[in-house]
Amino acid sequence: MDKKEQDQLKREAATKAAALVKNNSVLGVGTGSTVAFFIDALGQRKDQEGLTLKHIVTTSNRSKKQLESLGFKVDELKDIDQADLTVDGADRVADTLDGIKGGGGALTLEKNVAINSKRNVWIVDESKVVEHLSGFPLPVEVLPISAEQNFRKFAAEDLKPQWRENEDGSRYITHYGNYIIDLAIDPIPVPEGLAAYLDKTVGVVEHGLFLGICNEVIIAKSNGTIEIKERN
Amino acid sequence: MDKKEQDQLKREAATKAAALVKNNSVLGVGTGSTVAFFIDALGQRKDQEGLTLKHIVTTSNRSKKQLESLGFKVDELKDIDQADLTVDGADRVADTLDGIKGGGGALTLEKNVAINSKRNVWIVDESKVVEHLSGFPLPVEVLPISAEQNFRKFAAEDLKPQWRENEDGSRYITHYGNYIIDLAIDPIPVPEGLAAYLDKTVGVVEHGLFLGICNEVIIAKSNGTIEIKERN
Repeated sequence: MDKKEQDQLKREAATKAAALVKNNSVLGVGTGSTVAFFIDALGQRKDQEGLTLKHIVTTSNRSKKQLESLGFKVDELKDIDQADLTVDGADRVADTLDGIKGGGGALTLEKNVAINSKRNVWIVDESKVVEHLSGFPLPVEVLPISAEQNFRKFAAEDLKPQWRENEDGSRYITHYGNYIIDLAIDPIPVPEGLAAYLDKTVGVVEHGLFLGICNEVIIAKSNGTIEIKERN
Repeated sequence: MDKKEQDQLKREAATKAAALVKNNSVLGVGTGSTVAFFIDALGQRKDQEGLTLKHIVTTSNRSKKQLESLGFKVDELKDIDQADLTVDGADRVADTLDGIKGGGGALTLEKNVAINSKRNVWIVDESKVVEHLSGFPLPVEVLPISAEQNFRKFAAEDLKPQWRENEDGSRYITHYGNYIIDLAIDPIPVPEGLAAYLDKTVGVVEHGLFLGICNEVIIAKSNGTIEIKERN
């Protein structure tokens, strides 16, 4: 499948997700190439059906700008109570609909938006779909004050920590002034256990394990079809 | 007991703590009025016995300045592996030696220093000692992005959240740019359960429950005696 076909398929998946958005609802919008098509499809619904949204919150400046260019007003998470629906991508999604997110470094905001959303739908291409969580290092956002200690502890636990770095080799700094340690453990044997360990590790702000969060995943498959999986 | 007698007693407790510091060791130093006496006592040991320390880390600028004024060099937590001993105060300490800290707003750094210390000694006056954790609101440091959602969730869980505010009524902001929500639940029925809940709550950076951390508490009692309790 060439890029044009792939984009066409992503656009189809995004359009399916856009069809889930209810008029006058509160919407969370993630980021990524497929989400960009989703925002396009929202704009079409706005033009063609007069879709209006009570509030929109988003996890990236890129999505914010695209939404605003289509005439949508974007609010801050603190301005809303809950989103009715959030549509986002994911770096990996397992059969259980548990996922890994944070490849782009915005895991903390992404998880905050997701957790404050009644329903979460992810749109991904087939390359992100795995049986068990694997094939992608797990991002962990840590406070700089104890980042070195955390790194050494992760190494001692055989979690294969790696500092996230910028292209120039400097350490990547998140929007909140923290570092990211990517855990290259692969596959992740018991995601719930690792999540509990990271939750209680002092110095960890957030991690990229999104467990029990996604309700529905819309998959653009390489055979040209769209598959939808829902959590029971 | 008047302030002068109280200070004398705090000084005695602080001197006992200073006697625990081993030459050429790595020391963590907290903050507070009793800790200030502890730092004085360290300075005396430096002058009288030539006490030297491999590294010192501290949780406040006030302690840093006092240590430096006595000729000690202060390092950052990231520069050390572990402290051999950390001496700090506490807002409440229970019979179990579990405690509440963070009244001063530095709970995140305090917990990071404590957790990276082989041994933790707290020096407190008797007013801080309780049978079960109670009598002091529990500080929770939260990310601003989802602080409103967290506040409402805490209210729904009957944890009696209150925004920490400055004297002018503006919201208190921590060193890391976050807010503090004080939970006025009193007493705290199952500290381990509340800690686990807060650890996994998205948006919570750190909380003031210090469970299983303190090894020894040195108490300046109102009857003019010093009591020492050690964890079994």
